[in-house]
Amino acid sequence: MGIFTYDIKTLDDLFVHQLQDIYYAENQITQALPDMIGKATDPALKSAFKKHLAETKEQIKRLEQVFRKHGVSIAGTECPAIDGIIKEANDVTSEVADRNVLDAALIAAAQAVEHYEIVRYGTLVAWAQQLGRPDCADLLQQNLEEEKETDKILTVMAEQKVNKKAA
Amino acid sequence: MGIFTYDIKTLDDLFVHQLQDIYYAENQITQALPDMIGKATDPALKSAFKKHLAETKEQIKRLEQVFRKHGVSIAGTECPAIDGIIKEANDVTSEVADRNVLDAALIAAAQAVEHYEIVRYGTLVAWAQQLGRPDCADLLQQNLEEEKETDKILTVMAEQKVNKKAA
Repeated sequence: MGIFTYDIKTLDDLFVHQLQDIYYAENQITQALPDMIGKATDPALKSAFKKHLAETKEQIKRLEQVFRKHGVSIAGTECPAIDGIIKEANDVTSEVADRNVLDAALIAAAQAVEHYEIVRYGTLVAWAQQLGRPDCADLLQQNLEEEKETDKILTVMAEQKVNKKAA
Repeated sequence: MGIFTYDIKTLDDLFVHQLQDIYYAENQITQALPDMIGKATDPALKSAFKKHLAETKEQIKRLEQVFRKHGVSIAGTECPAIDGIIKEANDVTSEVADRNVLDAALIAAAQAVEHYEIVRYGTLVAWAQQLGRPDCADLLQQNLEEEKETDKILTVMAEQKVNKKAA
């Protein structure tokens, strides 16, 4: 997409652009998660990240179904937001000396990623419904629910154990 | 902060770093919102952005209180996440030709910003509580509640009106 070429003319164009954005983001997340798994000390946290990596791969397949159902080619587009969120996660976690504090930093970083996905899927579901694509909305809703669930699990893990160990 | 200097040794260091991150982010948001106000067509959306700009300025003052209460200097730190989210908002909204579609894109962009703030304030509140700083947690909670409320207002506005007009 060029600069000021006004390529987005309709809500459908905007929906496809946002779909390409989250498709790129999910793929970047599958690249970032192995490093977070490697850095995590708490076994339950490590295992939650592993589970989420597997889940993310399934979410990518669901996104590919949405592209196909909607009749557009499967493609990603530049997503400076997820690039920035992942860069920040790497920068901060590389600065932490203590392993328990690192676990707390990893959860915070992962929740920033989750919230980016939650907001994008929330928007995509609403737009798919508005565009009369309940089939696409259903698939996107499944991804949304999984992201919300992961976020909840991380909150519980942080508050019940990881933050206490870090303090 | 240097690269691999392991400047973050304790949860308190991590809390202060995150506080500097959101302080920078809120300041960037006050720079970005006037452009979004200028681009918005729907009067209620324009007015919601204006209200949020005023609110953000108050949130910055609350953050400054937190710095002072916690006995550290008021400072921002690099935040590639918010830089990326704002860059993406500018990129996408600059591509939209239709004014009603632009309003839908602006809401999506603003909600991505809100969710970044929601996740960071959620983490900061939990860390402040863990560090025995309920006074700081209370101030951060106030910002968190305002961000959640803004996000809800934007969702209602999108679903009840803006997405319909864009479709």
